[in-house]
Amino acid sequence: MTNNNPGQPVPVLLDGKWQTSNSTGTFQATNPTTGEKIATLFPISSWKDCELALQAAEAAFWELKKCGIEKIAKFLELYADKIDADKATLVELANRETGLPTAPRLGDVELPRTTNQLRIAAKATREGSWSLPTVDTKANIRSCYQALGPIAVFGPNNFPFAFGSLSGGDFAAAIAAGNPVIGKANSSHPETTKRFAELAIDAVREAGLPLGTIQLIYRTSHDDGMKLVSDHRIGATGYTGSRHAGLALKAAADAAGKPIYLELSSVNPVVFLPGALAERGEQLVDEYLGSVLMGTGQFCTNPGFVLVLDNADGQLWIERVAARFKAAPCGTLLSPAVQRSLTTSVQTLVGFGAKLLAGGTPVDGPRCAYSNTLLEITASTFVTNPEGFQTEAFGNAALVVKAKSVAEMVAVLKGLEGNLTGCIYSATKDNSDDAAYSQLAEIMEFKVGRMLNDKMPTGVAVSPAMNHGGPYPSTGHPGFTAVGLPASMLRFAKLTCFDNVRPHRLPDVLRDPPANAQTWRMIDLQWKQG
Amino acid sequence: MTNNNPGQPVPVLLDGKWQTSNSTGTFQATNPTTGEKIATLFPISSWKDCELALQAAEAAFWELKKCGIEKIAKFLELYADKIDADKATLVELANRETGLPTAPRLGDVELPRTTNQLRIAAKATREGSWSLPTVDTKANIRSCYQALGPIAVFGPNNFPFAFGSLSGGDFAAAIAAGNPVIGKANSSHPETTKRFAELAIDAVREAGLPLGTIQLIYRTSHDDGMKLVSDHRIGATGYTGSRHAGLALKAAADAAGKPIYLELSSVNPVVFLPGALAERGEQLVDEYLGSVLMGTGQFCTNPGFVLVLDNADGQLWIERVAARFKAAPCGTLLSPAVQRSLTTSVQTLVGFGAKLLAGGTPVDGPRCAYSNTLLEITASTFVTNPEGFQTEAFGNAALVVKAKSVAEMVAVLKGLEGNLTGCIYSATKDNSDDAAYSQLAEIMEFKVGRMLNDKMPTGVAVSPAMNHGGPYPSTGHPGFTAVGLPASMLRFAKLTCFDNVRPHRLPDVLRDPPANAQTWRMIDLQWKQG
Repeated sequence: MTNNNPGQPVPVLLDGKWQTSNSTGTFQATNPTTGEKIATLFPISSWKDCELALQAAEAAFWELKKCGIEKIAKFLELYADKIDADKATLVELANRETGLPTAPRLGDVELPRTTNQLRIAAKATREGSWSLPTVDTKANIRSCYQALGPIAVFGPNNFPFAFGSLSGGDFAAAIAAGNPVIGKANSSHPETTKRFAELAIDAVREAGLPLGTIQLIYRTSHDDGMKLVSDHRIGATGYTGSRHAGLALKAAADAAGKPIYLELSSVNPVVFLPGALAERGEQLVDEYLGSVLMGTGQFCTNPGFVLVLDNADGQLWIERVAARFKAAPCGTLLSPAVQRSLTTSVQTLVGFGAKLLAGGTPVDGPRCAYSNTLLEITASTFVTNPEGFQTEAFGNAALVVKAKSVAEMVAVLKGLEGNLTGCIYSATKDNSDDAAYSQLAEIMEFKVGRMLNDKMPTGVAVSPAMNHGGPYPSTGHPGFTAVGLPASMLRFAKLTCFDNVRPHRLPDVLRDPPANAQTWRMIDLQWKQG
Repeated sequence: MTNNNPGQPVPVLLDGKWQTSNSTGTFQATNPTTGEKIATLFPISSWKDCELALQAAEAAFWELKKCGIEKIAKFLELYADKIDADKATLVELANRETGLPTAPRLGDVELPRTTNQLRIAAKATREGSWSLPTVDTKANIRSCYQALGPIAVFGPNNFPFAFGSLSGGDFAAAIAAGNPVIGKANSSHPETTKRFAELAIDAVREAGLPLGTIQLIYRTSHDDGMKLVSDHRIGATGYTGSRHAGLALKAAADAAGKPIYLELSSVNPVVFLPGALAERGEQLVDEYLGSVLMGTGQFCTNPGFVLVLDNADGQLWIERVAARFKAAPCGTLLSPAVQRSLTTSVQTLVGFGAKLLAGGTPVDGPRCAYSNTLLEITASTFVTNPEGFQTEAFGNAALVVKAKSVAEMVAVLKGLEGNLTGCIYSATKDNSDDAAYSQLAEIMEFKVGRMLNDKMPTGVAVSPAMNHGGPYPSTGHPGFTAVGLPASMLRFAKLTCFDNVRPHRLPDVLRDPPANAQTWRMIDLQWKQG
């Protein structure tokens, strides 16, 4: 554990050492519940910190290849145990920096999810099937996925644990695939990230991994961020955050031929078909409310875009939701920046012609908060400016689109960009919605990474079948998921083929038999274990 | 079959109709054996042709989704049959346009490989396992890969059949994954590509696929090419060709968030360790010669970069290879453009300080040909300009690097860019090369897509375990292969998750049981059939 010296920026973690940053300035996080700056000063790293991190990460990468997977798995488990044991501190730090409730959210939901993910990652590493070992016995050609190189992780503001730069899904996947990680803390919760780094580096030492496996910087200039993701020593980058910053990093990484996996904005369309609203309209108000305002709407998969038919049931549903929006307490937003961007987004939508049914103003006082905001437009208005009306309002705001017909609903879906999720609710007691469903579902499936029926999208299960991904611009590539092991590990791996390579020189998973009898391998087009 | 009107450019194939191109000019191919232009005029399409192609491809995409996989598989098989039946014509056209020998190369090797690939693609489509269906029974979450959208294919000059825009590996993979293809012919063999389009569209009609499934244009402006790969209707692009043009297309596609799979230049390093040369030096001269001058060196995987130890055996090997280069007949190059670029590349390498051991001059006369060229430098020279000495000399030229020690060999490998392949030859009768192998192999494995032992890289087996890919800049992404079904299909697919979707609405492969009992699915982390 490191001590914070008052008046001095905290150290960065480079090559196993907590050292004074070569900084160009400092920043502070804000407690969004009080609106006050938190005293701890964090350094803004200059390129020199990045260079040192890259050097150490490159050296660690080659050492990691020799460590063997057992040490990597052990590290992930030790780290998970340390996080569980440190729950009180982590929850307190994160609550102060993000305003997210200590319970159930941080302590009972997000923290167990985080350690569960790390333990699943350990299992996936040991088991080896993640690497899709493939054998052609006749031609003696074998292939599998292997570690790619140092991974830069830029975590988001909204999940300080489960998507944290040094604790979340990208981190777990990158490490489990055998890569060192350079974490760039999210500026809204640097102290939480620092605490994770302290626990992680202890676990690195105990597991006997190279010290450069886990490193932490807190912030860089935009230029240095672009330089980092495009550096020749970087294997790939995982980024979750705003579209603007993400696309700037993507441009830099792309130009250098470096993979970058982005999880950007998404409005997550939900269609309530008329049969569903006729049958269970009131229940669907509850169901929607339980999702849309959860976490003050600050989920990547928040259902911020609703499509209903403009009939009596549709109108009633909207009125009930608007009333509930007005009645519900306004949650705390993650940071002043989120409050500002939500204010701007709502203004933008109103400027384009959306009608305010509820909210539309910041909450008075020092707390970062905005009134629960419901906006409405017609489908015929939407299609005149589909891009504009897909402006993401990250936070407790949603837009309802009223369509006069299923044909208008089709037109709205056709105007949607790529999204992480899309849901359709339809009648369960009769088949009155079936024709409409067929027309809408084929378009929606094409536009989203995860298609749901009769279920809200905010739960993103850590499941091997999960896709937390989707077509551009919700992510940077439609073929990868950021959640769900072992699939998410493939983002941080290279495919390597071994052609006529002598048996004793093959990687463990490609030997006959493989080192672990549990490993699934595709042998002559048949999946087999052992 | 379409007739070519003398003096008029041939038609393009748009939406099932052979129609006059909206062209901005014309071009002709050259017979590289005679150096003469071939009479047929081919149109340079304006954007209007591209726009029509995109409209038809988009419509075809949605129809294809409803066709069912059996029709797609049937098309691939019918098409393969038609190609086999048309062998004489195809071989004649391709020989005239590329100078590649009619036999064995075109007729007995490349054509059977092409039809074999199409038939394997048909099988992969029917079988369904390519889509990696994944089921979490407890959470009722399911996912699989699905068709992505219209695919633009830019085929290379060197394989008019097996990598052809409308006949090769990218084509087969894109169609098998359920996508329409817009083929852009390679300008060096447009008539061969046109013949494939004629056969393909007949097969499309017979199989009952939408007519926009297969379309053909011959050439566009560079700007229109960039516009095409970044168009919102495009799912992805497959490109095989020069680095310069490929990176320009990549920049455009990346900026639009469109996947583009490139197969660019590669020098394909080969290391002959001292034990191997001491033991079987003369045999390794034969083995090398059989690969390096094959097809006049015009393979993506041509072993154009050799690393040997500067000792008596190494010197002898080089001298023997140089003598063989001088004695061997000079093959015909694919086009005047290839002859020009080879001339430039050799001049560049010589300019950087490489010593000419053989060749170095264009062959006199009208034929497109260059003398078999062997160049040499020392490892200490290489490391002063690694980028320069990796200038690809596409054709019958190779560079030998002489190292004074294994440490120098390591330094050379560390200076290499990403490559498609890398080989190490080592002693078989004793373990004298083992220590050197270990040091070199870990670096080489990291730099290449396919690692070989004691085998030349020019054979790229159509195997499920093949990786015809590699780190940048040999390709645009280290995780994908351009050869080897079913893996190559994943480039042209999106991951879609179905969360709580009602059973009858699921794609065939995700229903219980799946439509095809042969389909492999990962159910609760266990691979199972049916």
